[in-house]
Amino acid sequence: MTKPVFYHAGCTVCVSAENDIINLIGADNLDIVHFGIDNSRLDEAEKAGVKSVPALVTPNGNVLHINFGASMADLRN
Amino acid sequence: MTKPVFYHAGCTVCVSAENDIINLIGADNLDIVHFGIDNSRLDEAEKAGVKSVPALVTPNGNVLHINFGASMADLRN
Repeated sequence: MTKPVFYHAGCTVCVSAENDIINLIGADNLDIVHFGIDNSRLDEAEKAGVKSVPALVTPNGNVLHINFGASMADLRN
Repeated sequence: MTKPVFYHAGCTVCVSAENDIINLIGADNLDIVHFGIDNSRLDEAEKAGVKSVPALVTPNGNVLHINFGASMADLRN
């Protein structure tokens, strides 16, 4: 099964949510993408429907926007 | 360990997120509160910091607002 993908940008809200999601789901069960380290996956995230980070894209393609750290548009700038 | 609590109100956004969270964490590992069926826990949720539903309150007390279905104020009306 494809792992859920957690996209974030290293902001305080992002890191807090990352810790919570890891505690809930387990780090081994997640694909974690940090745009501050690797922004090559911005297109992939936007195509998946991610509007802001932190966000979790489930294996069936649903996007769960979790709290609000930064918009994708802000990450492009 | 205390289970995370998933608060929702039966709206479309809520039910979609509920299914996703159940798939990710497992129904047995969640305390699910549906305000449309039981609104006696509105106070508890607001004290925990829930501003809108669907929301997941983690065992350590963090609130993850997931997408946006309805504000808590709307549920009071």
